[in-house]
Amino acid sequence: MSTIINRIAVKEAAAHLNEQVTIKGHVHSLKDLGGLLFINVRDASGIVQAVVENESVLCQVRGIKVETPVRVVGTVVSRNGGSACEIKAEKIDQLGVVVDTLPVEIAKEKKMDALSLGTLLDYRPITLRSPKVRAIFKLEAEITRAFRQFLAEQRFVEIHSPKIVATGTEGGAQLFKLDYFGKPAYLAQSPQFYKQIMVGVFERVFEVAPVYRAEEHDTTRHLNEYISLDFEMGFIESEQDVIDMQVRLLKHVFDHVRSVCAEELAMYGATVPQITSIPRLRLDEAIGILQKNYAWGANEPEDLDPEGERLLCEHFHRETGSELVYVTNYPLAARPFYTMPFTDTAYSGKPLSRGFDLLFRGLEVTTGGQRIHDYEQLHASISKRGLNPEDFKEYLQCFRYGMPPHGGLAIGLERLAKQLLNLPSVKQTALFPRDLNRLRP
Amino acid sequence: MSTIINRIAVKEAAAHLNEQVTIKGHVHSLKDLGGLLFINVRDASGIVQAVVENESVLCQVRGIKVETPVRVVGTVVSRNGGSACEIKAEKIDQLGVVVDTLPVEIAKEKKMDALSLGTLLDYRPITLRSPKVRAIFKLEAEITRAFRQFLAEQRFVEIHSPKIVATGTEGGAQLFKLDYFGKPAYLAQSPQFYKQIMVGVFERVFEVAPVYRAEEHDTTRHLNEYISLDFEMGFIESEQDVIDMQVRLLKHVFDHVRSVCAEELAMYGATVPQITSIPRLRLDEAIGILQKNYAWGANEPEDLDPEGERLLCEHFHRETGSELVYVTNYPLAARPFYTMPFTDTAYSGKPLSRGFDLLFRGLEVTTGGQRIHDYEQLHASISKRGLNPEDFKEYLQCFRYGMPPHGGLAIGLERLAKQLLNLPSVKQTALFPRDLNRLRP
Repeated sequence: MSTIINRIAVKEAAAHLNEQVTIKGHVHSLKDLGGLLFINVRDASGIVQAVVENESVLCQVRGIKVETPVRVVGTVVSRNGGSACEIKAEKIDQLGVVVDTLPVEIAKEKKMDALSLGTLLDYRPITLRSPKVRAIFKLEAEITRAFRQFLAEQRFVEIHSPKIVATGTEGGAQLFKLDYFGKPAYLAQSPQFYKQIMVGVFERVFEVAPVYRAEEHDTTRHLNEYISLDFEMGFIESEQDVIDMQVRLLKHVFDHVRSVCAEELAMYGATVPQITSIPRLRLDEAIGILQKNYAWGANEPEDLDPEGERLLCEHFHRETGSELVYVTNYPLAARPFYTMPFTDTAYSGKPLSRGFDLLFRGLEVTTGGQRIHDYEQLHASISKRGLNPEDFKEYLQCFRYGMPPHGGLAIGLERLAKQLLNLPSVKQTALFPRDLNRLRP
Repeated sequence: MSTIINRIAVKEAAAHLNEQVTIKGHVHSLKDLGGLLFINVRDASGIVQAVVENESVLCQVRGIKVETPVRVVGTVVSRNGGSACEIKAEKIDQLGVVVDTLPVEIAKEKKMDALSLGTLLDYRPITLRSPKVRAIFKLEAEITRAFRQFLAEQRFVEIHSPKIVATGTEGGAQLFKLDYFGKPAYLAQSPQFYKQIMVGVFERVFEVAPVYRAEEHDTTRHLNEYISLDFEMGFIESEQDVIDMQVRLLKHVFDHVRSVCAEELAMYGATVPQITSIPRLRLDEAIGILQKNYAWGANEPEDLDPEGERLLCEHFHRETGSELVYVTNYPLAARPFYTMPFTDTAYSGKPLSRGFDLLFRGLEVTTGGQRIHDYEQLHASISKRGLNPEDFKEYLQCFRYGMPPHGGLAIGLERLAKQLLNLPSVKQTALFPRDLNRLRP
């Protein structure tokens, strides 16, 4: 045996038929037939079977435990003469020690599927090793990669805004408070103010970073810390330009994950929508459809509840084939102070805004809109909400010195992944979720 | 004039000679010669001069203020018959309002260079618009892009670990504390535990995210919130594999920024090192060199002070041409509990570790090392430091169930950018820096 054998990813084994290779990974599962031992070795690329029949190699792995990290040197051979392959082990080194029996059987898909959310999360460092669980995070890595790739091509510049802030973006509610060298400070709810400031600098910016909501919700759609995929762009005509950009962005992201995450999607039986166009309608029109066709809702509702979001998506899926729908022109009062009012004279109801949401398979996955860019208008909007413009002094700076019409949006990464994989809870799509009751691991 | 004219980036103007184009940007500076007005228009790509001589266009921009966002339609013409070009304005629309005179003259490079750090940061939303200031953040965007690109090619998977944590990675010192629904929580000092856990899942992972240090330092090298470029990799032989990976990574990153940020680097007269190999030596060897050649240091020092880091880099730059140097094998006591001990029998002094630092032009820009992967050894190391293993229960979970030898490192993005551009303070390389006295903007 030569001393240096190329290490390959187990997925590449078939390309090395009859070659001697090295693989490294964890013992995913074992089958001991006495003089013959089958070891499934799992690395980041997949799983391959190593066959141990040689007496001296059997000695090397006597009593080996599931999850032991190993290095296997062996020859790739065809499995039962078919197109699949396995590795005839010639040497196995144990590179780490397992001190205990696994608390969950991560190699058994049905048992993993049946785990309670609590157990899944309590043993997160181990349950993440399950191929089906980790597939979620491979998908998320590819979503963010495609998000950045598309935006960089569209001249967006990546920024990193501070998460420790002196003022909330919406006046102080639902903020985590901390002691910053004796001064009160908060965790940022969103990079909103910073990305707007940066429109004056780079015109188009994006950020992928955590945001914080001290909401006392414990639901399948809320996390207290989550990853927000934000972008903001200047020199727009209206919020429709922001929507146009997102449609192209989503098409790119969806096409990318459909092509590189085929295996991960298949584990969940998930399909990724083919995006051509996405229906857009005003909130009042959406409510009209729901009330007329589905006997939905209270009198004069100002927002969609989860049931309304679900019904509306089902409606458009059935009517147009689209699993996504934009709901635009939310009431001004329901949106933050920086939202641009909608002043179309054709509409004469309550004051509306240029804020929109994107619903995907019944769940809001994006909030966005055009922002106010005029200093006087913004100052007045802050005062009108009963907030003190002095608290927003630094943010207001950029508007004193000329801001172009602009807008942007934020996509919740965990919600998008949840919807793509049709998972029941957004807590499954956060690596180490933080919620009302969970601060560990 | 046709109604739809292509919008171009001002940098592309020369490619559209004699064509009618639209540009959008801010009025960077103005020169009014009565019947002739020169407007420098700045967008994210650069600056171009618009010439206004037509009487009706002059009316459109009468009294226009610096920084006003504008849309200019005009014809690209050669400037004074040379290779440079300018735009003969045919129509100018003011797309936003400037309500005040600028507090700093961002178009005047010398005045910007002379600003105090305090003023530079107090007016951050405006000073960032200066081409030389914003160049820093274009560079950082390209550093992180190249960082991710290289690591993705090397089979690293991007992760997002929580920044709200229940325990510090080093036992509780220098942590920002917050109230998490009535429970004490902290802001993560580093993604250390999570990236180690993820080695058991994906073998190789990286993260680009903020980290938090409640250090009461107010220096040119410290920030209380900064962006950490982290990676961690499994199945290594020693910390030398981590260093090997970083050398290749840095070569990729440096080659990338040298090629795409030529203009930004030129603004600072900065050159980017050509990386071939980087010298590596043990801390005790480094101290020996400093004491012998530069009469440096106290008796029996256990670490390099800023002066030592500077002298050592100058030494290696002179002796080998390298502006970077790895200092390895820091004393075990000076490193966190998870650091792998160095047990080379050829060395017989105080207990050393497999932890290393990378110095670049006199400043530490990376800390890394091999980690302990054996459960019993890690458990003992925690206890030996007077810490309670129970506090690290979830972290320890992954070690109970088999971890391969692994290691990793963290690069401080702001420090790396500071050193690349030879800037005096790391506060200049944070978009909105957080320090002992600064929580705004």
